[in-house]
Amino acid sequence: MPLKKNELLIPRGYLFSTARAGIKYQGRDDMGLIFSERPAAVAGVFTRNRVKAAPVVITRRRLQRGTGRAILVNSGNANACTGEQGFRDALLLSRELSRRLNIREGEVLLASTGVIGTPLPVDRMRNALSELTDGLKREGLKAIARAIMTTDTFEKYYSTRFRVGKTDVTLSGVAKGAGMIAPQMATMLSFVLTDAALSPETLKAALKEVVDDTFNCITVDGDMSTNDTVLIMANAASGAASIGKRYYRQFRDALYEVLDSLSRMIASDGEGATRLVTILVQEAKTRADAKRAALCIANSPLVKTAVYGRDANWGRIMAALGRSGARFRQERVKIMINNVEVVKGGLSTGRDDEAGRSMEENEEVVIHISLGEGKESSRVYTCDLTEEYIRINAEYRT
Amino acid sequence: MPLKKNELLIPRGYLFSTARAGIKYQGRDDMGLIFSERPAAVAGVFTRNRVKAAPVVITRRRLQRGTGRAILVNSGNANACTGEQGFRDALLLSRELSRRLNIREGEVLLASTGVIGTPLPVDRMRNALSELTDGLKREGLKAIARAIMTTDTFEKYYSTRFRVGKTDVTLSGVAKGAGMIAPQMATMLSFVLTDAALSPETLKAALKEVVDDTFNCITVDGDMSTNDTVLIMANAASGAASIGKRYYRQFRDALYEVLDSLSRMIASDGEGATRLVTILVQEAKTRADAKRAALCIANSPLVKTAVYGRDANWGRIMAALGRSGARFRQERVKIMINNVEVVKGGLSTGRDDEAGRSMEENEEVVIHISLGEGKESSRVYTCDLTEEYIRINAEYRT
Repeated sequence: MPLKKNELLIPRGYLFSTARAGIKYQGRDDMGLIFSERPAAVAGVFTRNRVKAAPVVITRRRLQRGTGRAILVNSGNANACTGEQGFRDALLLSRELSRRLNIREGEVLLASTGVIGTPLPVDRMRNALSELTDGLKREGLKAIARAIMTTDTFEKYYSTRFRVGKTDVTLSGVAKGAGMIAPQMATMLSFVLTDAALSPETLKAALKEVVDDTFNCITVDGDMSTNDTVLIMANAASGAASIGKRYYRQFRDALYEVLDSLSRMIASDGEGATRLVTILVQEAKTRADAKRAALCIANSPLVKTAVYGRDANWGRIMAALGRSGARFRQERVKIMINNVEVVKGGLSTGRDDEAGRSMEENEEVVIHISLGEGKESSRVYTCDLTEEYIRINAEYRT
Repeated sequence: MPLKKNELLIPRGYLFSTARAGIKYQGRDDMGLIFSERPAAVAGVFTRNRVKAAPVVITRRRLQRGTGRAILVNSGNANACTGEQGFRDALLLSRELSRRLNIREGEVLLASTGVIGTPLPVDRMRNALSELTDGLKREGLKAIARAIMTTDTFEKYYSTRFRVGKTDVTLSGVAKGAGMIAPQMATMLSFVLTDAALSPETLKAALKEVVDDTFNCITVDGDMSTNDTVLIMANAASGAASIGKRYYRQFRDALYEVLDSLSRMIASDGEGATRLVTILVQEAKTRADAKRAALCIANSPLVKTAVYGRDANWGRIMAALGRSGARFRQERVKIMINNVEVVKGGLSTGRDDEAGRSMEENEEVVIHISLGEGKESSRVYTCDLTEEYIRINAEYRT
């Protein structure tokens, strides 16, 4: 169920390359390099898992400087739970890359995704570095989106453009998702690039604000990875004025558009998914209540299998709502599935079959719960749960 | 994977019957009646879901009296989210039954399991009441275990016997589980009967203590039902002395034996399960840390699908541990799968294949995590996650 793709625009001042190191997958690129021709402001958000992969620990530390030049990424191996060796391997690669690019080592940011607990095939990866640095070119962001895929079925990218004064600036993002997807962070990896000019502080504030409403509101299986990384670079290559308070809102809205689109793509490409599912909880007493309820429903295996069966089984939605911890009175609950009201005043309206048909006929399923308790709302993207999820995850390593 | 069955002993002073009301299933009994020939002490624990079925609300209230005579149960319809009508239906059945049994209405306890949101076929159920009251007989507890099944693949019962002074007392339990199984409460329905003599207060204390370590430590899918009910009756028909402080420990141990066995049966019969999985977290700083970690690992779809794939994918165990909120240092973690050490000091021992074979060859999988932080431990039963779970739950209503 690929979502409508938009054109992938390349922000000014960035170069890209990918290479085939044979880390795990055969016959495809599995390493990628993003390079900013000039120093860029950088910010990031990371997994909150207590178990963090080596590249996460290293990159988080390097972000404190606020500027960077390069992102080196690989798929097929997470470099997580690899101990001291994992750190040495990651540092070796970043040192070698910085030498080749003639930048400081602290300007190299790292991200890995793949199997946990297996040492990096660091010699093969090191050999691929020359291909990466020699192959840098302006067109190549789409190849990065492909090189970071693991169980993803399509590459995920999204671009937008907006004006700062009289100058056009571009904002583009790539992402990978598929499994082990839940807040916080919701996505395994995402890289967002802009040629706008921002201070590292503004960039960080905008990223945090937008991620909370986008990547942190998607879930496939409730599992949280050791490697989740979102990095944003702003290299000012557009020549536009700096995004201060004056253009903050525009920048934030553009960033929301990009990250929201990537979030929907990630949820729709959840392992084995056949439907993108939006859970919208409204009229909650507090925002926390709304988010708690939306996440609990989104993560319920019974709700997700019912969507797969195109069964408007609102009893399971009600049961998940009831265990979520959100405050509500059953007799005020209203539930709509793809705009068909199936529950009113906490009771069946008898329109289950109609709602089931709408699930059959639409590419997306929107479950809309109204609690009648207040004014707060929350929205979470997820997907249905299918036999294919089981097959993918029972056989992933073998 | 049926666990070893033991003999089903019938405690003195109880009668049983089942009937075919055609509530949802065809060609099988779907109603059951448990009757104590004399007033019995009763206690119960119930779902903590905010959405509670009518029988849960009614029975919880009736337990305040501390004594009861009859349990009326049905499968095929949960009588949840059925509004005022659901309460009227439940009360109609209990009133009618009390009249037929010549007991007070408040002595009738109710439990239902099945589809949510559909009104009870109350006329058909009412018609079955005479069959139930006319058919009461001493042998028939096993038929109750069968009548309460929904997606269960085998009936669940367990008995034990112990001495109070020179008198033998019997303790027997039946249960149903399969799906929508998670603390609190872990099981959909369980009824435990004894001919020992206990005050309602002692009975309640023992039940709560034991349920916390048994039914509240199993999870199939993390979903919590609207109907979960555990009821225990003690009718003193053995003639043994009252279980006061003197015999409390023996009673509690016997109750633990029964509920622990039923818990293992429920987890092993999780929808579509091929393996009973025990998650044992030891050497945690606090008991809460241990339980949090064990439950998080037990509920991880990625861990559960790895078990199904017989893949000793300890990276997923580590990732679930890392997001659980439990305090630990990665470099102290030890993980054993069926006694094969796969992680030591937070790192791979390279014995994954050996562990995978042991998962293939054994009926059960024990995942043993040692945190090296303290002395507390917790144990949770769960099962693997298979395509069959998806099929059962995508097609349950259709």
